[in-house]
Amino acid sequence: MMAEPKTEQTRQFLAPEAADDALVRLAKISGQVQGVSRMIRDDRYCVDVLNQIASVQKALDGVSRTVMRNYLEQCVTDAVKSDDPLIYDELMKVLFRHR
Amino acid sequence: MMAEPKTEQTRQFLAPEAADDALVRLAKISGQVQGVSRMIRDDRYCVDVLNQIASVQKALDGVSRTVMRNYLEQCVTDAVKSDDPLIYDELMKVLFRHR
Amino acid sequence: MMAEPKTEQTRQFLAPEAADDALVRLAKISGQVQGVSRMIRDDRYCVDVLNQIASVQKALDGVSRTVMRNYLEQCVTDAVKSDDPLIYDELMKVLFRHR
Amino acid sequence: MMAEPKTEQTRQFLAPEAADDALVRLAKISGQVQGVSRMIRDDRYCVDVLNQIASVQKALDGVSRTVMRNYLEQCVTDAVKSDDPLIYDELMKVLFRHR
Repeated sequence: MMAEPKTEQTRQFLAPEAADDALVRLAKISGQVQGVSRMIRDDRYCVDVLNQIASVQKALDGVSRTVMRNYLEQCVTDAVKSDDPLIYDELMKVLFRHR
Repeated sequence: MMAEPKTEQTRQFLAPEAADDALVRLAKISGQVQGVSRMIRDDRYCVDVLNQIASVQKALDGVSRTVMRNYLEQCVTDAVKSDDPLIYDELMKVLFRHR
Repeated sequence: MMAEPKTEQTRQFLAPEAADDALVRLAKISGQVQGVSRMIRDDRYCVDVLNQIASVQKALDGVSRTVMRNYLEQCVTDAVKSDDPLIYDELMKVLFRHR
Repeated sequence: MMAEPKTEQTRQFLAPEAADDALVRLAKISGQVQGVSRMIRDDRYCVDVLNQIASVQKALDGVSRTVMRNYLEQCVTDAVKSDDPLIYDELMKVLFRHR
């Protein structure tokens, strides 16, 4: 059902292992999101729903972490080594997005 | 396909309008999560993936907000009016979950 | 040197114990902030500076927590019991300030 | 009153302009922290106190941002260029401290 991930040779950004890790996590997150909907339809206690949403947020942080590490090890590393001055603006924007 | 939401009379916690609002948001979030998976399979730039994950997080915050408001207006209000002292511990735990 | 805190009778919002707790924490935080300045003048490693700033943030969260609990137990409780509908908007604004 | 900042030649980590910027911000933050104490002694409304604490937190984020940018441009850049593999663990720890 899933589209074939690009092969190692053709992938430019996210390394295959990181991509696999992220996809497994996202599949689990899809299930968790459906679980939240189910809790709401079943009229579960609000605090339980809020806790479950917090779990999904934490799981998404896990995906961010995987992608971020790969981003640092690949893209940021390449940019730094080739003295691309724009990488710092990009990185700062990513890091301080929410503040 | 969706299970029928409980009718207004039978729902105890999340009010029907809040439940509908949350379910619509969650359906959109499911699509967004699949979108992130697609971006990863398509080997999109890491920063674009991270931005998309941040959008999903923000959308989940929207659901939390809906559930939280209902929780405050219903459960917390009832508990406060009946002088239930435990509500403050519960509320503090919900509010400072991440810190 | 410190202005006398209001006496129990005259304080309307923050209860005396909560005020004392917050003031002790804030005095410690003042010292921590000066410590961060000292680290910067001493040219300490950036990560150590960032970690120290994170400690100050966490300590400020502790003050927020003290004030928040008092706010819930006093102001929110009074407003809910007197059916003030505006309290929910105020509370939501406080809770979702950063998002 | 302030200790002399190290001169440009002797500073190893935080560049002089970044250090100056951070020290100015921190001096302002010290004043803000004292302002919060004053609000508490004056028995100001809890929401006003909470808002002021949030302002201090935001100001501290500004210091973090200054130090972080310098850290990326100096320490991380040097480490990446000299192929130090430990920099990624350090960076990830800094970035995902709170999650």
